[in-house]
Amino acid sequence: MPMVLAANANASGSHVGEWRHPTAWNNPAANIENAKRLAQIAEAGKFDLIFLADGNGVRQLDKPALFAATSPSDRPGVFEPVTLLSALSMVTSHIGLVATATTTYDEPFHVARRFASLDHLSGGRAGWNLVTTSNPDDALNFSHTEHMERGNRYERAAEFADVVKGLWDSWDDGAFPQDKEAGQFLVPEKVHVLAHKGTHFQVRGPLNAPRPPQGHPLIFSAGQSETGKDLSAQHADCVFAIEGSMPAAQRLYADIKGRLPKFGRTADDMRILSGVTIFVGETAEEAEALFQQLEDLVSPAVGVDYLSKMLGRKMQGYALDEPMPKFDEEHVGHTGIGKAILNMAYEEGLTVRQTYRRILPQMGGNMFKGDAKQIADTMEEWYTTKACDGFMIAAPVVPTGLERFIRLVVPELQKRGLFRKEYEGTTLRDNLGLGRPANRFFAA
Amino acid sequence: MPMVLAANANASGSHVGEWRHPTAWNNPAANIENAKRLAQIAEAGKFDLIFLADGNGVRQLDKPALFAATSPSDRPGVFEPVTLLSALSMVTSHIGLVATATTTYDEPFHVARRFASLDHLSGGRAGWNLVTTSNPDDALNFSHTEHMERGNRYERAAEFADVVKGLWDSWDDGAFPQDKEAGQFLVPEKVHVLAHKGTHFQVRGPLNAPRPPQGHPLIFSAGQSETGKDLSAQHADCVFAIEGSMPAAQRLYADIKGRLPKFGRTADDMRILSGVTIFVGETAEEAEALFQQLEDLVSPAVGVDYLSKMLGRKMQGYALDEPMPKFDEEHVGHTGIGKAILNMAYEEGLTVRQTYRRILPQMGGNMFKGDAKQIADTMEEWYTTKACDGFMIAAPVVPTGLERFIRLVVPELQKRGLFRKEYEGTTLRDNLGLGRPANRFFAA
Repeated sequence: MPMVLAANANASGSHVGEWRHPTAWNNPAANIENAKRLAQIAEAGKFDLIFLADGNGVRQLDKPALFAATSPSDRPGVFEPVTLLSALSMVTSHIGLVATATTTYDEPFHVARRFASLDHLSGGRAGWNLVTTSNPDDALNFSHTEHMERGNRYERAAEFADVVKGLWDSWDDGAFPQDKEAGQFLVPEKVHVLAHKGTHFQVRGPLNAPRPPQGHPLIFSAGQSETGKDLSAQHADCVFAIEGSMPAAQRLYADIKGRLPKFGRTADDMRILSGVTIFVGETAEEAEALFQQLEDLVSPAVGVDYLSKMLGRKMQGYALDEPMPKFDEEHVGHTGIGKAILNMAYEEGLTVRQTYRRILPQMGGNMFKGDAKQIADTMEEWYTTKACDGFMIAAPVVPTGLERFIRLVVPELQKRGLFRKEYEGTTLRDNLGLGRPANRFFAA
Repeated sequence: MPMVLAANANASGSHVGEWRHPTAWNNPAANIENAKRLAQIAEAGKFDLIFLADGNGVRQLDKPALFAATSPSDRPGVFEPVTLLSALSMVTSHIGLVATATTTYDEPFHVARRFASLDHLSGGRAGWNLVTTSNPDDALNFSHTEHMERGNRYERAAEFADVVKGLWDSWDDGAFPQDKEAGQFLVPEKVHVLAHKGTHFQVRGPLNAPRPPQGHPLIFSAGQSETGKDLSAQHADCVFAIEGSMPAAQRLYADIKGRLPKFGRTADDMRILSGVTIFVGETAEEAEALFQQLEDLVSPAVGVDYLSKMLGRKMQGYALDEPMPKFDEEHVGHTGIGKAILNMAYEEGLTVRQTYRRILPQMGGNMFKGDAKQIADTMEEWYTTKACDGFMIAAPVVPTGLERFIRLVVPELQKRGLFRKEYEGTTLRDNLGLGRPANRFFAA
């Protein structure tokens, strides 16, 4: 199976300082011309897919420096991802289009319908990144007074995904002969009424859309808790995994794939993509210089705000050049990331400034830096030792970093036989080597 | 103010038999190439907008003939409208893009966000057709056991629209300087936290999108009940009105526009579009022949099923060529349309067959037939006598009927100075002569 390459398509990048770089897009907020160009760059580079993270809220209202100075992780000025990818389906022809949607504050019928629609619009290139919403404050935008409790969110998510897949199977393939002569638009025997009655949802169906070209648009997920890994093993075609070291990534890979048989699936039914920020240059020095340049674009106020956000606790007021203070575990992070950052700081004896500088450029915990050969070596090693099946790549700066990755690294991967020279097929499933799922209500 | 022309963009038309016509699209279900072509035809004809009706369910499961043989009004094989219009924004440049979304089974934050996104994608061409969902069974797709009661639906809709507009005003114009040098992405003083707490919703905000190019994407509505008309007067920029006669349309027009001052608005703040199916030919005979041809494409089984649907009662088993049976009012229709159909049948002494044939081609109760001059005369009379400000046109057959309307009628309207030769501006508001609304939280 060839290596999977996915491009993070956030128009202002993943590094908190990168939008300020001279070669970054000007005016990235809700800019369709930029988004179009980025998708076309990724497609010219034969990337499998572009990926849009998402949330339903503006996060940094209470962190003034971060609120005023940064755009990437907080996204106050972005397109709604399914509308954006629907638009991009018209100006691309092969690349996969993967958008995030939450199971916590949406309805299975709506989500099934929108991704079915995107799959039809794009000729089978849609993917749904299933999230349960990590930002508690998003609840306040949906008439909830507090965020749904984690266990409940995951239980709801599993049922939600099951309903969505059931709705995608509402119609058999070939249910719409649209026979003008016979006056038969559809075949009544080829519809299935789902009649789902579960703990969280009652959904009758059928969906008012023909079965998607891919059967089911791909499902992505990223949870690394026990419940999150089980959810992935049950429902996900692709998992976005985040580990800072290769051995940890190998363990996670084995863990998640090891759960598949429990749900009647095999290791080949899933692709695991490792999230990584890649700085590549003509030389290793050039890559390092770019990295330093981005760090310099982040003021201490923004850096400390960012560190506070990642740790889930206020970090203002600590001396920047003193060692990271000791915190009890319960005083940090609603996610595992906070804990990982602290461990790193303690193990390496980092100061507060060193810590925030260290975490700034990393999209969820991992970074490769170097020249093309070094990057390709690392990617090959991760890939061949089953740390991952491919990569979810943030390539600072947008768009020049992605262009540089494609110019320098992609040919090196192709030369080694690790990456495609042409798209294998027309759907995202074709290109990922994932089969088209059978319809659960109709025998093939 | 010039006449407004809107095109019904349902790919299989509005007449129950028209998809079977030899010149109709082949394979209209979820066909993006057709949809693209239709939008481009309408734009070449300088139409103000294309319009997509919508529902969240498959309606005719229990009406076998209609279920198998028809597509238009029941839409089992369509795109989700906002995704489709997002795609079409990339292949058009001036025409307005108006999609239906329900306030009964969706969230104000999601709806505000999607239409803001469509407005950004299209450079200010988005419109939202606000509906409260007419089909009771749609409730069953959203974990409800029964449809929300009408009064409650309208109360919820009014609050929903108010929240959506408030979210669109989350950011002042110019809130995102994206100043690389200064490191200032946004201006913190230019965001407003809505903090809405109402009867149906609690929505904190702000919306995670810059203010839409139009300020507010246009709001369309169509209700003709007292509460529906008040909702329109309070929130709608455009009203889609349905009356079968010019005097009735004039009364409705005066009624709705007369309600505007109550909400601090003037008659010029709203455009009323009359829904009409137009059969035009090189001669009146050609138009009549097409009309008869479509009726012949509808089998009695489908016709009676359709009549049953419109009346809201079972009509199978009545002799086709006997007069329409007498029914008490409470035995028909959850909508006003059923009553109007019965009154027509009784007044004119129509048989069951004549009645269903009479209603089949009409999109919501009105039809113009004739040559170009006759059609233009009628449109001019409706327009100049304030029966409407323009028309929501279904032009059988798709796409040939729309092409014929543009070839024959549009030049006649242009010659009379009633319709534009070129688009007035770049946004839908520009073209409709509707000003950009002020931001309620920020002085201009």
